[in-house]
Amino acid sequence: MDTDNTATSVISSDKVTGTNVYNPAGDKLGSIETLMIDKISGKVRYAVLEFGGFLGIGTDRYPLPWDSLKYEASHAGYVISLSKEQLEGAPRYARDVVPEYTDAYGRRVYDYYGVPYI
Amino acid sequence: MDTDNTATSVISSDKVTGTNVYNPAGDKLGSIETLMIDKISGKVRYAVLEFGGFLGIGTDRYPLPWDSLKYEASHAGYVISLSKEQLEGAPRYARDVVPEYTDAYGRRVYDYYGVPYI
Repeated sequence: MDTDNTATSVISSDKVTGTNVYNPAGDKLGSIETLMIDKISGKVRYAVLEFGGFLGIGTDRYPLPWDSLKYEASHAGYVISLSKEQLEGAPRYARDVVPEYTDAYGRRVYDYYGVPYI
Repeated sequence: MDTDNTATSVISSDKVTGTNVYNPAGDKLGSIETLMIDKISGKVRYAVLEFGGFLGIGTDRYPLPWDSLKYEASHAGYVISLSKEQLEGAPRYARDVVPEYTDAYGRRVYDYYGVPYI
């Protein structure tokens, strides 16, 4: 994830969550709800985008590979190279139906965004 | 970080933050305030322990290497192999004086906990 030009190379998780996500056209897609971290390696596997709904009702969650997000200071948020239509076909789940984040699931998610699953 | 025996290999950042941290004797050291993530690699560099103080006043922050924490279901929290005395000598900063997380700083933190800085 490319982020803003701060002096340090790290960012705190609470600055990532809640940050808006836009497509390249500038449409707001949603915001980052949480990060899913690989327990062993400590690597952030997914930034989970909350999208749609109203006041948290009926929203879907989209796990995005960390590397698919780029910070844009002009938006004060992340930009992902994806149209709204592409996002609608992306792997997602309802708030209360969190999938098992298996390797197979991870590969499917990463493949969708064209990011190598390592 | 070893964590609980869930079916999946990932854990959400909001389940890590707020979790208590204990030493092996069972003394509560504090709780995880936030995670510091390497922007490029997406790796969690530090889980930041909030320790001491009262109602958030006068607390210090201790960056801990992710690999130094082990989840213990019996404590419903993380355990770090460190006495209170060792913790008192550990790298720390006041809430409002966040250091630049440079490589040199990271090496000092990791060295203190005996974890390789990669």
